[in-house]
Amino acid sequence: MEQNPVDYVETQYFTFAEPPNELVLKSGVKIGPVTLAYETTGKLNAAKSNAILILHALTGDAHVTGFHPGSTKPGWWDNMVGPGKAFDTDKYFIICSNVLGSCKGSTGPASINPNTGKPYGLAFPVISIRDMVVAQRQLIDHLGIDQLLCVAGGSMGGFQALKWSVLYPERVRSSIVIAAGVRHSAQQIAFNVVARQAIMSDPDWNGGDYYGKTIPARGLALARMMGHITYMSDKSMQEKFGRKLISKERLGYDFSLDFEVENYLKYRGDSFVQRFDANSWLYLSKALDYFDLTAEDDLVKVFETVQSSFLVIAFTSDWLYPPYQTKEIVKALKTNDVDVSFIEIQSDYGHDAFLVEVEGQAQIISHFLNRMQGDSARG
Amino acid sequence: MEQNPVDYVETQYFTFAEPPNELVLKSGVKIGPVTLAYETTGKLNAAKSNAILILHALTGDAHVTGFHPGSTKPGWWDNMVGPGKAFDTDKYFIICSNVLGSCKGSTGPASINPNTGKPYGLAFPVISIRDMVVAQRQLIDHLGIDQLLCVAGGSMGGFQALKWSVLYPERVRSSIVIAAGVRHSAQQIAFNVVARQAIMSDPDWNGGDYYGKTIPARGLALARMMGHITYMSDKSMQEKFGRKLISKERLGYDFSLDFEVENYLKYRGDSFVQRFDANSWLYLSKALDYFDLTAEDDLVKVFETVQSSFLVIAFTSDWLYPPYQTKEIVKALKTNDVDVSFIEIQSDYGHDAFLVEVEGQAQIISHFLNRMQGDSARG
Repeated sequence: MEQNPVDYVETQYFTFAEPPNELVLKSGVKIGPVTLAYETTGKLNAAKSNAILILHALTGDAHVTGFHPGSTKPGWWDNMVGPGKAFDTDKYFIICSNVLGSCKGSTGPASINPNTGKPYGLAFPVISIRDMVVAQRQLIDHLGIDQLLCVAGGSMGGFQALKWSVLYPERVRSSIVIAAGVRHSAQQIAFNVVARQAIMSDPDWNGGDYYGKTIPARGLALARMMGHITYMSDKSMQEKFGRKLISKERLGYDFSLDFEVENYLKYRGDSFVQRFDANSWLYLSKALDYFDLTAEDDLVKVFETVQSSFLVIAFTSDWLYPPYQTKEIVKALKTNDVDVSFIEIQSDYGHDAFLVEVEGQAQIISHFLNRMQGDSARG
Repeated sequence: MEQNPVDYVETQYFTFAEPPNELVLKSGVKIGPVTLAYETTGKLNAAKSNAILILHALTGDAHVTGFHPGSTKPGWWDNMVGPGKAFDTDKYFIICSNVLGSCKGSTGPASINPNTGKPYGLAFPVISIRDMVVAQRQLIDHLGIDQLLCVAGGSMGGFQALKWSVLYPERVRSSIVIAAGVRHSAQQIAFNVVARQAIMSDPDWNGGDYYGKTIPARGLALARMMGHITYMSDKSMQEKFGRKLISKERLGYDFSLDFEVENYLKYRGDSFVQRFDANSWLYLSKALDYFDLTAEDDLVKVFETVQSSFLVIAFTSDWLYPPYQTKEIVKALKTNDVDVSFIEIQSDYGHDAFLVEVEGQAQIISHFLNRMQGDSARG
């Protein structure tokens, strides 16, 4: 990818201390001060009507597009966010904030607990998708934006986009919800509990108190390896790896790795532990499992007060967040006569499709945002 | 379940020592002596033409039906095997043998290595589905049976049934292949490599040398928990557990278990380690991953010499061994003009369906076996 100084972005940090210096979480627990890492691209217009908040998935971060100075690694959604791209930074002011509980610059279990002067570890409170959104709202307040033109995200980002629209209806002009549902199903919880058990049964996890010591690399690598299977599809795995051997003439007949797919997963697991905190995985996966828009009311009722328009996208081969779950959102919105567009994109990439199916998504998102901006300008 | 002395079965053991006292494995490695645990029910007729060999799945054993004296736990396929059942013990002589490499009475990594006087551990050679079948053939020779009326099994048992038909065409009158394919796909290998890594990264695994010491319970439990997700379907998990909490009024907002599905998987994992050997899981999962009927030739070519009739069964919601893979078998057999019946049974039980969908399978199997026996009697 061509690197251009104009693409440079730098991470910014916003720390807030709600009176009295705290954020009240869904659990009732108070925490503060809270820092959110975020990045912005494009220019906020004078009317402050062109701001889009992009929401990341479990292991994502604020670095959604462009390059950090000195780095050749583009942001995680660089193919979708930039000049002339789906989220066009020539037109829109793009904000992406790392979520509460993560380890990418925002307050999370690896942060210093002001009460002890040491990393929180498991003393960090269990957070919810709602808490991530409430924290982000403080950032949007800080940026002086009354209404976001759009909140958009896939996977855990889609959960946040939904929650934004329900929690702050007047703050959201439109929502793009990709590869997500309205609650975690038993199977989704099941994969997460195995991942959490993998981390927590690693002796190096040490009850979450491992900062400055040996990290629970084996457990976290296992969680990530299993995760990768669920992010791909049966077909994409078969096409990418099949039964190809790792530079071997024949099967090894031992317990070294034989197949490329083994090597790939092992590599992905081992490299992941260098860039993600095991406790953050625990907290974010728990927030996902706790997510249930219908916990207190029927979905149709929950959507009664939303004011945003919606673009909802699912992918045919996504079996982690399958289309039938995404369609629940559409049905309940339609029942409320909300302006909602839905598309199920044919793709073999499984859940990963939201990151890689640029062609399928770009024009649809671009047109949707154009329409939203046009409506805002007229409104 | 009603227990009747007539249902009592006892495990028998057959030890063979091919000259010179060894079994030559697919890898070229020799091993011996080899013991197979097996059980029989029903009576072998004078013509020895009513013998059916039932082949078990990864964690199965020889105890397919009835009760061991003093136990109230029936065999693993008791709902399908017994008087008047699909595999009717009033008509057929049923043999079920524990596979080579397992830990249920047959020679495997937990057995004593005659060269050292200690358990094999990782000194046990890597085995294949073919090796399991070759060992079973010695048992069938020992029982004096020239031709089996049927070889039948689901999952790994289906792989063995296929291999029996290809390797010993003249020894097999018919094959029932359930919820299986002709080779392990990338995704199937992927789940297995995560399970193996879970076991091997447990410090108690100790390079496979843990007999008489602490067993790698955490790693094996993780492997089993993940396995269980793949044995069920999204729908069956949702119907069985949904988001039900474990006798709690509300979410715990901590890292204890909240949901019943978590509790179920944890319980299944923890209880499994009491009855299965971690090294056996490694060996059997490797045998599965190595399985590829098409490794040396096109499937149509591979099936050219089979002489058995086939009944092939798949289940709609089985995503571990999905129907499209099972259909490959049918297509290649049909191309060879082999007598093959195929049925795709509508079921929500996922891969577990082969163990629990009695109604769907029983009559079909019963009729198929009747036809096979009729043909044999006339033949």
